[in-house]
Amino acid sequence: MPEGKPNSAGPIRVALLGCGTVGTEVVRLLTDQAADLTARIGAPVVLTGIAVRKPNKHREVPAELLTTDAAALVASDVDLVVEVIGGIEPARTLLLEALRSGKSVVTANKALLAEHSAELFEAADASGADLYFEAAVAGAIPLLRPLRESLAGDRITRVMGIVNGTTNFILSGMDATGASYSETLEEASRLGYAEADPTADVDGFDAASKAAILASLAFHTRVTASDVHREGISAVSASDIAAAKGLGRTVKLLAICERVTETAEDGTTKESVAARVHPAMIPRSHPLAGVNGAFNAVFVEADAAGEMMFYGQGAGGAPTASAVLGDLVAVARNRVHGGRGPRESAYAGLPVRSIGQTPTRYHISLDVADRAGVLAQVAAVFAEHDVSIAAVRQEGRVDDASLVIVTHAASDAALRSTVDKVGGLPVVRDVVSVMRVEGEEQ
Amino acid sequence: MPEGKPNSAGPIRVALLGCGTVGTEVVRLLTDQAADLTARIGAPVVLTGIAVRKPNKHREVPAELLTTDAAALVASDVDLVVEVIGGIEPARTLLLEALRSGKSVVTANKALLAEHSAELFEAADASGADLYFEAAVAGAIPLLRPLRESLAGDRITRVMGIVNGTTNFILSGMDATGASYSETLEEASRLGYAEADPTADVDGFDAASKAAILASLAFHTRVTASDVHREGISAVSASDIAAAKGLGRTVKLLAICERVTETAEDGTTKESVAARVHPAMIPRSHPLAGVNGAFNAVFVEADAAGEMMFYGQGAGGAPTASAVLGDLVAVARNRVHGGRGPRESAYAGLPVRSIGQTPTRYHISLDVADRAGVLAQVAAVFAEHDVSIAAVRQEGRVDDASLVIVTHAASDAALRSTVDKVGGLPVVRDVVSVMRVEGEEQ
Repeated sequence: MPEGKPNSAGPIRVALLGCGTVGTEVVRLLTDQAADLTARIGAPVVLTGIAVRKPNKHREVPAELLTTDAAALVASDVDLVVEVIGGIEPARTLLLEALRSGKSVVTANKALLAEHSAELFEAADASGADLYFEAAVAGAIPLLRPLRESLAGDRITRVMGIVNGTTNFILSGMDATGASYSETLEEASRLGYAEADPTADVDGFDAASKAAILASLAFHTRVTASDVHREGISAVSASDIAAAKGLGRTVKLLAICERVTETAEDGTTKESVAARVHPAMIPRSHPLAGVNGAFNAVFVEADAAGEMMFYGQGAGGAPTASAVLGDLVAVARNRVHGGRGPRESAYAGLPVRSIGQTPTRYHISLDVADRAGVLAQVAAVFAEHDVSIAAVRQEGRVDDASLVIVTHAASDAALRSTVDKVGGLPVVRDVVSVMRVEGEEQ
Repeated sequence: MPEGKPNSAGPIRVALLGCGTVGTEVVRLLTDQAADLTARIGAPVVLTGIAVRKPNKHREVPAELLTTDAAALVASDVDLVVEVIGGIEPARTLLLEALRSGKSVVTANKALLAEHSAELFEAADASGADLYFEAAVAGAIPLLRPLRESLAGDRITRVMGIVNGTTNFILSGMDATGASYSETLEEASRLGYAEADPTADVDGFDAASKAAILASLAFHTRVTASDVHREGISAVSASDIAAAKGLGRTVKLLAICERVTETAEDGTTKESVAARVHPAMIPRSHPLAGVNGAFNAVFVEADAAGEMMFYGQGAGGAPTASAVLGDLVAVARNRVHGGRGPRESAYAGLPVRSIGQTPTRYHISLDVADRAGVLAQVAAVFAEHDVSIAAVRQEGRVDDASLVIVTHAASDAALRSTVDKVGGLPVVRDVVSVMRVEGEEQ
């Protein structure tokens, strides 16, 4: 269908790919809200089929719509395809097919978007179809539309948020109980907050996909999941949590996307972007510190708009379906009234910095011998590696002492060499905790 | 220009009406971001003129663009008109003229939208022009686009927020210092946080306009400023603030928009909406309690999405200009690529409930004689008026006592009769504070 060509003749025909928790909720909302959707779109929506792998599984959806032939459903006479299967294949092939034949796509698939958005956008552009994916990041929170559209006249400098519910549940639990990572993960699995194989969440893959999508939209450049520095939470120890608490901080898994502007000696500036996912200590007074359980929250900083925060449910069937339906209405309106949603905006073509080029602040907690001169020895190692110390706290105990150091911004590499050498000093008994620090003045 | 007709031939020509703080920032962003805007829109933006009343006033904008003839500027060959004059006239006449001649409009004018949106949308519809107004509510916070678009597939039930910076500055100040309303207002004026004539802010007119806009978008119905129950903050006393503090609460001026569903005996349901602006006590643990100064924050509740919060700068030149520019990009993209933004969605046509039909909880603080039987007498008056008591706290002092009562939801009228009668009891020395309570379980 050529760009902007209105199709006001009849109803909007929709194919649904996948019918798990989110898909079932999409079907429910399409039914319950039918009259409202018709009024808002200007035409009724008709669900023509639902592609599933196991048609005999019990589902609260009309059985006559189920099919196992997703490719045939995509090839059939539909205006738009909603994809809630997840994962790369077969979603990628099906959506490329849909877009190439001019069918608009609404998807909640973060992994696919984070890896193959260029290819998907090209297919959409070639046929004039729409590609919407609000549900792919932060569930029900309207976040991508604000980044793509509301802030399109501003210059976004930073996006930082909690975008994974499972890891947030685990870290909140460790903070509340003092329990270890493995105990708390077990509890999360038992309660249904962690998948049987929790790798995608706890190792930060899910958050990294979301960071890639956020960075691409915020900075008008291409960032894929493999560009994102990724550290999960499995190495976060009860000692780390205790050390954070002792300093009025808490530990969160953060996704951070930054625009970096460097000014050369001749006054010219060079821009680049950095995206990273890692656990970090943040002050308890920071608004993100109070975000618990399945909730997500994302801070956005822009030159003119200043600081904004978006908060809401980051996962779950109904919240995710709400985001899918919002996109469905937008795409359907474009079909009825003509016009197109935003295309890929990657004109900035900014280079991506590695974590080695992205200095951050660190918190280091050491068990040391309680005698004079220890701080001098430790501080000398930091100085030697050019890692500047921002604050030190030393507390004597029975026959040893705890030494807590917070650095100014330092590179990953410099910090690691420093910690290695400090850990080898005879006066240092143990390196208790090393963690990045965020959410404070640099 | 007919709906969806692309104008990809040349640059997007823009007229700016008004050049105060916001207008100056709009000009600055159009200049500073020119290359980015061109890339994001697909065509360059050209500012063809700026209508002002006093052309000789010093401004940081190109003098050759200034004109005092706003009508001629609107009638000239432009694609879109940005209005940041404020107030009803001449803005209304100018924008109607622009829309009727097919020029799209971006405005930050909450008073105009809250009174005349029907007329403006009709004019836009007749010519196929766009009408965008993100900057009219909550400054830089992307809020209207999420309500109009992201949540278009959901059923919004409640919107509650802090949408006026001046009153929030005053109430935060009273809470921090214990000073009176008039002292704090004076301080706010001195620091530039309150206008020379603060009526629009302190009497709640500004917040009521915003509530009308929010209710219209959230519930797909027409709500005007005159439909909004409005109480300002000038009657909030130091005693009210002290009473709130004693109970772990703080006082905020809230704009609250609600969808009310009543089920009749025969099972049929009837929907209506209510919108109100008034000071209320909220728990200090509530996220809105921590929103201070010029910041705004709005909670949105929807059936599927659950609870969301949007937080950011609610006023100021640059933040408001950011929202204006976001709309400008959207409108310009529609010109270049064809298509239209959302039109008025008022199909629901829901009746608006008066405050008399909108029960809320109340906090009442009384100075009473410290003797037996006082509570019984007071409680009898509440029972007589069918106002149910949720909690009571009585504290003896030297020769009198303080009695604090929190009610269950009660109507405005019932509460007022109750307080009148209680105030007349011989054992009651003074009615110290009467205030609505929000943000807690009903």
